[in-house]
Amino acid sequence: MGLLEIARLIIEKDNIAVVTHVAPDGDAVGCTLAMVEGLRSLGKNAVVISRDRAPDNLTFLKLYDEYTGTSPKIPKEAGLLIALDCGNLDRLSLDLDSVGTVPVINIDHHMSNDMYGIENHVDTKASATAEIVYRLLGLMGVTITKSIAESLYAGIVADCGSFSFESTTGETHIIAKELMETGIDFPMIHRILFKTRDFARLKLMGKALQSLEERMDGFVTFMYLNAEDFNSLSISDRDSGDIVNYGLESKTCDVSVLLKEAEGFFRVSIRTKSLLDARAICEAFGGGGHVRAAGGNIKAADVEDAKRQILMIVERMLPDGRCD
Amino acid sequence: MGLLEIARLIIEKDNIAVVTHVAPDGDAVGCTLAMVEGLRSLGKNAVVISRDRAPDNLTFLKLYDEYTGTSPKIPKEAGLLIALDCGNLDRLSLDLDSVGTVPVINIDHHMSNDMYGIENHVDTKASATAEIVYRLLGLMGVTITKSIAESLYAGIVADCGSFSFESTTGETHIIAKELMETGIDFPMIHRILFKTRDFARLKLMGKALQSLEERMDGFVTFMYLNAEDFNSLSISDRDSGDIVNYGLESKTCDVSVLLKEAEGFFRVSIRTKSLLDARAICEAFGGGGHVRAAGGNIKAADVEDAKRQILMIVERMLPDGRCD
Repeated sequence: MGLLEIARLIIEKDNIAVVTHVAPDGDAVGCTLAMVEGLRSLGKNAVVISRDRAPDNLTFLKLYDEYTGTSPKIPKEAGLLIALDCGNLDRLSLDLDSVGTVPVINIDHHMSNDMYGIENHVDTKASATAEIVYRLLGLMGVTITKSIAESLYAGIVADCGSFSFESTTGETHIIAKELMETGIDFPMIHRILFKTRDFARLKLMGKALQSLEERMDGFVTFMYLNAEDFNSLSISDRDSGDIVNYGLESKTCDVSVLLKEAEGFFRVSIRTKSLLDARAICEAFGGGGHVRAAGGNIKAADVEDAKRQILMIVERMLPDGRCD
Repeated sequence: MGLLEIARLIIEKDNIAVVTHVAPDGDAVGCTLAMVEGLRSLGKNAVVISRDRAPDNLTFLKLYDEYTGTSPKIPKEAGLLIALDCGNLDRLSLDLDSVGTVPVINIDHHMSNDMYGIENHVDTKASATAEIVYRLLGLMGVTITKSIAESLYAGIVADCGSFSFESTTGETHIIAKELMETGIDFPMIHRILFKTRDFARLKLMGKALQSLEERMDGFVTFMYLNAEDFNSLSISDRDSGDIVNYGLESKTCDVSVLLKEAEGFFRVSIRTKSLLDARAICEAFGGGGHVRAAGGNIKAADVEDAKRQILMIVERMLPDGRCD
């Protein structure tokens, strides 16, 4: 359905719930909060539905406190559920039982969208769902205030990697310009999204980079973090964030591998630059993921054994049988 | 002088030399090569003047090989010198003697420009000189080819930090959109400019981050690299690049300090986030620089003594006498 028809449908309703996907990221939270704020500016009763917490670096968004992760049920009075940035019903951050007969409008930019709404608007050319929401709010007659613009700008730059990903279009830049004109502190948003870490995570990055080694003439890099690295920094979730990306910064590297010690196995994160398929590498030991980012668990006697196994997989995939 | 008049002046000439500042960065090289390529497309004889090498990560630019650092003299037949992105005559990357009576057109975006040209166009609102050159080439009737667009796009994103710096404007985004429409591989440009390092420099970053420590409740962070850190990685120039910026990523940090062991003293690099003036801190021990980025050499018995001295300066600068 076209965006103008979607706008008309929404405007007819007074009580509207808005939801996004589980494990919400910058785009998910940004476009959800912008939509709720926009609906309220039109005098509507709008609520955020969520059963997951928003990332805590987004506290600067005006309605952040309403994204609590503790409101998974759609209120009885709701006449419409707007689902944003989510490819299928099962991944919505809510209690599915509470949807009942409430009509769902599905607005998304992901290729793999199940078209689960009573009406669907899936624009795969948009770099972020926040781009679509920006256009939609305009069609609904919402004035884009500074706080709405902050939510949308955060969503867009989070999803397009500060205009560096292939998904960025001319339209992305036009919208960025229009959002900037509301007076948002966009350098602050970039700093918070891309240049802010916990002290402990910076130290963890140091430990990982210290372990960095090249194999196959630098085509593959390995980093390794053991249990003690996490324990000594009191990082309990074993989350290594974007550290694996740094291996890829090495000029010659096409395959960056981060290994994390676990109980009887190793967790593997792989990123590839342009030649090899990260998912195919990981599927070879039972993992999965995407072409450029994948992972899984590997059984190995020790970390050197894990590296050997991965190198063998990589060598098999190279057409010219390149080796160390 | 307005840009249209500048365009008219340039179009009258047939032999044109183009130069930028010493220690050229992405914007300097990008706008210089774009200008030369644009002039040639109009049938003019245009040459790059340089006595410094261009950064070697810019080899992807079509005319990179003409930026040799070995052509510091303006040819006798030149009827015009276009000086780009350079605030004063002394910083031009050429033999000043060779300028003689050749008229100089000075095109720049720096606040501190001496207006040294016979004609000057200094637009401090432009995020990069490449922005101005883009507009100028358009006024001269140059078709923006893909290779010209690559040079200009590289210049712009290098100078505006991928659209994150305060200097970014709506105009920056509009130009980015127009350049993208020529079909440039902009994700590659971002990757080369912001996500590519030598393997040894990644290891050096690991060493620095390993040494990271917080003081004054995390308000100040210190990193330290000794001579052995550089020697073991065969990094002879003692260049630590952007490593000092990583200290600033810590949430609580306002002052990031990187200390490098030298012969009888320590080299200091300081970055500040928002509260303190990095230059003022460095001036207190004889250094200098800018508000957010400064440096200098400090005499100290050992690295702990250097840290103590810097902490004392920082504490003096805090209005509330905050301390460790």
